[in-house]
Amino acid sequence: MSELLGNLLVAQSGGPTSVINASVAGVITEAGHHGCIEEIYGGLNGILGILNEELIDINDEQASSIKGLRYTPAAALGTCRYKIDFKKKPEKAAQDMDRLFEVFQAHNIRYFFYAGGNDSQDTAHKIHLEAQKRGYDMRVMGVPKTIDNDLPCTDHCPGYGSVIKYNCATVTEVGLDVGSMATDDGSCCIIEVMGRAAGWIAAGTVLAKQGDPARPPHIILLPEIAFDEERFLARVRETVAAHKYCIVVCGEGLKNAAGEEIGADKTRLDAFGHAVLAGASEKLKEIVQGKLNLKTRTVLLGYAQRAAAHFASQTDSDEAFACGVEAVRSAVGGKSGFMPKIVRVSSNPYKWTIGLEDLANIANVEHFIPKDWISDDGFLPNEKFVEYAAPLVVGEVKVPTQGGLPQYVTLARVPVEKKLGARG
Amino acid sequence: MSELLGNLLVAQSGGPTSVINASVAGVITEAGHHGCIEEIYGGLNGILGILNEELIDINDEQASSIKGLRYTPAAALGTCRYKIDFKKKPEKAAQDMDRLFEVFQAHNIRYFFYAGGNDSQDTAHKIHLEAQKRGYDMRVMGVPKTIDNDLPCTDHCPGYGSVIKYNCATVTEVGLDVGSMATDDGSCCIIEVMGRAAGWIAAGTVLAKQGDPARPPHIILLPEIAFDEERFLARVRETVAAHKYCIVVCGEGLKNAAGEEIGADKTRLDAFGHAVLAGASEKLKEIVQGKLNLKTRTVLLGYAQRAAAHFASQTDSDEAFACGVEAVRSAVGGKSGFMPKIVRVSSNPYKWTIGLEDLANIANVEHFIPKDWISDDGFLPNEKFVEYAAPLVVGEVKVPTQGGLPQYVTLARVPVEKKLGARG
Repeated sequence: MSELLGNLLVAQSGGPTSVINASVAGVITEAGHHGCIEEIYGGLNGILGILNEELIDINDEQASSIKGLRYTPAAALGTCRYKIDFKKKPEKAAQDMDRLFEVFQAHNIRYFFYAGGNDSQDTAHKIHLEAQKRGYDMRVMGVPKTIDNDLPCTDHCPGYGSVIKYNCATVTEVGLDVGSMATDDGSCCIIEVMGRAAGWIAAGTVLAKQGDPARPPHIILLPEIAFDEERFLARVRETVAAHKYCIVVCGEGLKNAAGEEIGADKTRLDAFGHAVLAGASEKLKEIVQGKLNLKTRTVLLGYAQRAAAHFASQTDSDEAFACGVEAVRSAVGGKSGFMPKIVRVSSNPYKWTIGLEDLANIANVEHFIPKDWISDDGFLPNEKFVEYAAPLVVGEVKVPTQGGLPQYVTLARVPVEKKLGARG
Repeated sequence: MSELLGNLLVAQSGGPTSVINASVAGVITEAGHHGCIEEIYGGLNGILGILNEELIDINDEQASSIKGLRYTPAAALGTCRYKIDFKKKPEKAAQDMDRLFEVFQAHNIRYFFYAGGNDSQDTAHKIHLEAQKRGYDMRVMGVPKTIDNDLPCTDHCPGYGSVIKYNCATVTEVGLDVGSMATDDGSCCIIEVMGRAAGWIAAGTVLAKQGDPARPPHIILLPEIAFDEERFLARVRETVAAHKYCIVVCGEGLKNAAGEEIGADKTRLDAFGHAVLAGASEKLKEIVQGKLNLKTRTVLLGYAQRAAAHFASQTDSDEAFACGVEAVRSAVGGKSGFMPKIVRVSSNPYKWTIGLEDLANIANVEHFIPKDWISDDGFLPNEKFVEYAAPLVVGEVKVPTQGGLPQYVTLARVPVEKKLGARG
């Protein structure tokens, strides 16, 4: 494979994580080792910014900032949820593609890296195919990222280990709190975590039990398993009888037997008569308090969980960085249309390596928890899941603090001079 | 003052914090240095457990467990919200007092330490007065604790520094996340924190700005200041125009001009026709989305914030420990009916010492944020507040981890043999 000379463009897409910047740091760091890569650019807000020719010059960033990306959460380059949708909007999609390649060409982009989840891998795949079609010599690589852990082919996704590590600490701490408050009346706490379709995040909190059945979480409600109110209430009652309190973790997308999200209860109306989307935890609280007369509080971690770099997993951060590094190495080596994936060599001791997967196998495929990794009653992941997830939370990312507060980096974002007119 | 020989009893009361166990560790550690203190007992679940003669023998705990209390959140001895109420239930209160002193006498308790907030200090004060009345020689000390920071006389309360430190990290991290997602449409996130009457916790998140007006939080809504929807929406609009996103922190007890909590909206009904208490953040989300058509998410930290020992303040933990130590020293020195308080010597550099305050001045008095510590528009605490709060979050408590998860201690709780019959 002949050496391809030119500039590199890296961008981020979709919901941020604690370690998506670590992947960008991996791309940038590795790119510096290859003479064929001339300039290193960042695209602001994913392809949305690239369409607007909003590129920044990474060479103008301080070295300490690039290093700092390894512990800084969220998307330092900005992100977007913009989709190039040939099915629904073929004309717009064709225009967007034309514009993207105008930008690539104007800035001699020959290496393009897109860090993101399912949709973003789909976009990367389309750009790869388009480059081939147009005969534009460019190496395109997806870089995996998603707290949801629902990308196929990779053992797990960068971002996942950190979100479950933080959520486990939260479950343990809230459990100690609620447990110490529980008198003979008992009490219950519902912790709602992210995950609308796949329950990987909720399931991951099982690690907080650390092998002790008495420890929280006592019940984990996965979006994949239809919520059964009677069975749930019976389990809460049993748990309170045994331990005087009950910690429930639920995925935000928890659904009833009809497949409707339980948080989207049509019977709750706001002042304007619109259905109130109060969330799964509020709905569960209503049920537990109403039916069991049990004092119940809720915790809704929301964005806090996917941004909690102050307690991120070092393993996760290292893997995210390694995915960025491998993307560059593979691209320089001549590959295009692939995504680095994490390959598990062994669980105990935990050993991993980075492989490559064709983007055609990744895009728009969702990966769910295997059925035999969940207990028969559906309330807790079993030892197979624990073996899988336990290594992913090991190690703590060191975040510098000043005055007791985390010091994350922000990029200087020096713009690359525009060469094109405004987007049509 | 003659030396008083006898046993020590320590108990915890009210909502737990990240560092209330550090105070207990201070009591226990210091007690070991005084020969006049014979046995060291813990009372389970505050006076509720003491009434039931549920005492544990601290000498049967491992030394490592006592050390571990310095980084373990929640109430290791269990807690309660039980009140001895002479006003509303004089007969019951008198019975309870009789029983308490039966227990004290049966176990030769001569030193009693009660760690808690306003109500608990009131209880300690009543027990102190009762001991005097009965001529029962016992030294009673309150030990301050409350994330709400609303105890009078003390510069601040153990527990407060840790809750605002964690909340600041969360605000910073969520801010980076939401900021990186914000495209031209802008977006908003409402973070609801504890504080039903006093806004100390919400106010404390101003430290996350680290002096930069552009940084989150952009708006802080305190329960002390009546919520004005129009002014709030105008400020959200301005913030999004300037920064493309807006992070709002609100205290859970946010009230409207009529003094009603805005989360307790009577127009929202559940399936049974009962008002839905969805919380302040959900109500604010409804307002922002409805009136500004701005994508809005919420974070409800709930118990997670007061139990987040994995990012607790070392300053806070040290002060909590010192309060426990001082309580014992003062009691051994002959004092009773007091509470150690934190006295600020200087803010910069931060220097503090421990003083003593008469419980009569503490019990049932609430301490609010001085009006001149809040900006004229009421949306942000000012530099006076920052000077006050900044030192309280300094330093990180080191929590041991195993497999990447925090390892907190639980006490063995070896019961002290009961000497009385069951409570009447």
